[in-house]
Amino acid sequence: MRATTKDLIERMLAGEGLALAKLITIVENREPETAEIMSAIHGRGSAAVVGITGPPGAGKSTLLDALTVHYRAQGRSVGIVAVDPSSPFSGGAVLGDRIRMQKHFLDDSVFIRSLSARGNVGGLARASRDVARLLEAAGKDIVIVETVGVGQSELDIMRLADTVAVVLVPEAGDTVQAMKAGLLEIADVFVVNKADRDGANKIKTELDQMLHLRPPDGWEIPVLMTVATDGKGVPEVVSALDEHRRHLQESGKAATRGAAGRQGEFRAVLRDELGRRIERALEDESVSSLLGRVERGEVDPYGAALEAINDDRLVAMILSRASEGNR
Amino acid sequence: MRATTKDLIERMLAGEGLALAKLITIVENREPETAEIMSAIHGRGSAAVVGITGPPGAGKSTLLDALTVHYRAQGRSVGIVAVDPSSPFSGGAVLGDRIRMQKHFLDDSVFIRSLSARGNVGGLARASRDVARLLEAAGKDIVIVETVGVGQSELDIMRLADTVAVVLVPEAGDTVQAMKAGLLEIADVFVVNKADRDGANKIKTELDQMLHLRPPDGWEIPVLMTVATDGKGVPEVVSALDEHRRHLQESGKAATRGAAGRQGEFRAVLRDELGRRIERALEDESVSSLLGRVERGEVDPYGAALEAINDDRLVAMILSRASEGNR
Repeated sequence: MRATTKDLIERMLAGEGLALAKLITIVENREPETAEIMSAIHGRGSAAVVGITGPPGAGKSTLLDALTVHYRAQGRSVGIVAVDPSSPFSGGAVLGDRIRMQKHFLDDSVFIRSLSARGNVGGLARASRDVARLLEAAGKDIVIVETVGVGQSELDIMRLADTVAVVLVPEAGDTVQAMKAGLLEIADVFVVNKADRDGANKIKTELDQMLHLRPPDGWEIPVLMTVATDGKGVPEVVSALDEHRRHLQESGKAATRGAAGRQGEFRAVLRDELGRRIERALEDESVSSLLGRVERGEVDPYGAALEAINDDRLVAMILSRASEGNR
Repeated sequence: MRATTKDLIERMLAGEGLALAKLITIVENREPETAEIMSAIHGRGSAAVVGITGPPGAGKSTLLDALTVHYRAQGRSVGIVAVDPSSPFSGGAVLGDRIRMQKHFLDDSVFIRSLSARGNVGGLARASRDVARLLEAAGKDIVIVETVGVGQSELDIMRLADTVAVVLVPEAGDTVQAMKAGLLEIADVFVVNKADRDGANKIKTELDQMLHLRPPDGWEIPVLMTVATDGKGVPEVVSALDEHRRHLQESGKAATRGAAGRQGEFRAVLRDELGRRIERALEDESVSSLLGRVERGEVDPYGAALEAINDDRLVAMILSRASEGNR
């Protein structure tokens, strides 16, 4: 690891916001040092990692804001990762949402970072997880990961959270859409926001009925009502999130999840590294001429790839770049 | 390649639906023979590959149905891939939608297949592309790929199409949501469905205005109005899709896209195959004991992965499995 990176890590662990921001950028861009940084900070901090998701327009950002105010009033520090996998182009939209968070701008105990897809969703879930880890290592008590949409990418990102709050609004068919989108399966807490609107009780009843059909697993998923714009119901959400964390720890689920998570990370890092080496090998002359033939349609891409991978010389080249990988 | 697979390919190319269905299953499950199958059928057929996407509730399935009726009336055969990346759990919902397509069930010239995520979205985009290729090789004139949601995964899947139709409905904020979701960037044709509702002209005007701001690239994106339930406007959509295909060919864009696509496929197959070998290597005793230590938290996952990948022994193991890969 470069001395400057080591230095950044030390400064981040000592609480320096700028060092944290720089490390996040390295990790977000999946630079070669990423794995070493993540290895160096492994086990640091002990944040409650909360995921917030739900359909567009549910008022997630407003709720996030209200939760942050409440956590701060309790004296807890907050790190926020707002992730938008929906489009590599819509960075502006997310930033627009973030403007609401400006009141926390001068609060050193609140750190906010937006991540967007840039065309690589698999990478985005990994980057989100690593950024959440960095915030935890930097000593944040609560790390909140918010996702903007309701696709599979959002579900993948939510897997990094210990506790997931799914936010819905009282609108016709919202429950059905949520069910279709797989949100019911990942929710640890439901929040019906904009609960001063018509239909709030109806959606709560629907959710309660559906949740009643779940096989019991020791945690009863609460359905809470909020009006995030004026903070109504927010303390109850914070209590429920805290209670779910306690449940995870006391039931031993936290340990099981931890083991599975570590195994997944190990595999993912292996894959990432090999992928990086393949990209490098593709720049090699012998491979790039093959690539040219593929582009011109002279050989079919599947056949050419199979040929390349059955070529021990090429595979050895890919793998022999090992020592270059993590300087 | 196994003789049975070779036989399946020959029967599929001869037009046998059952052989096509079996090959699709192999490819959907990413079985080891996938790359060889795709290599064998490379360059077969010459379908127009059309993508249909848009927010839930836009009436995509109904439009798809109406388009199919129209194509069939023109004597063109149709292959349909309906992809739902939104949830590994919601297979039922998609199948429900598909029930509407039952009237085509006895029509040999219409082939319909639903794909869902099963927790692996990256793989889903690859599988969708390959299934579309199989339908093309099987001689379908039109291959339609429909995606259910509006996330990044859907955008990725749409990349496989030559022509993308984005379906919206006249509802407040739909244009803005579409823009946020990145749909404006991928549309070659816009369809405002349910155009008998209030606001249809308003959304058309909004879209036209926004499209007017695009730098000209030789293709003017049309905004068409349909009422898919009674087939209104559907012939115009088919004409626009055909016209876009002609534009791609005449402008040379088809060739450029083809070259980029082939390069991407080559890289993807390399990655897939190496990934498969890593998974196999992870089952080896020496690695699985390391994996156990990672799970128990005795070593950190990032550090352990870096160590493993820099371990010549593991690399040699991956290498030695090369020849097993594609039997």
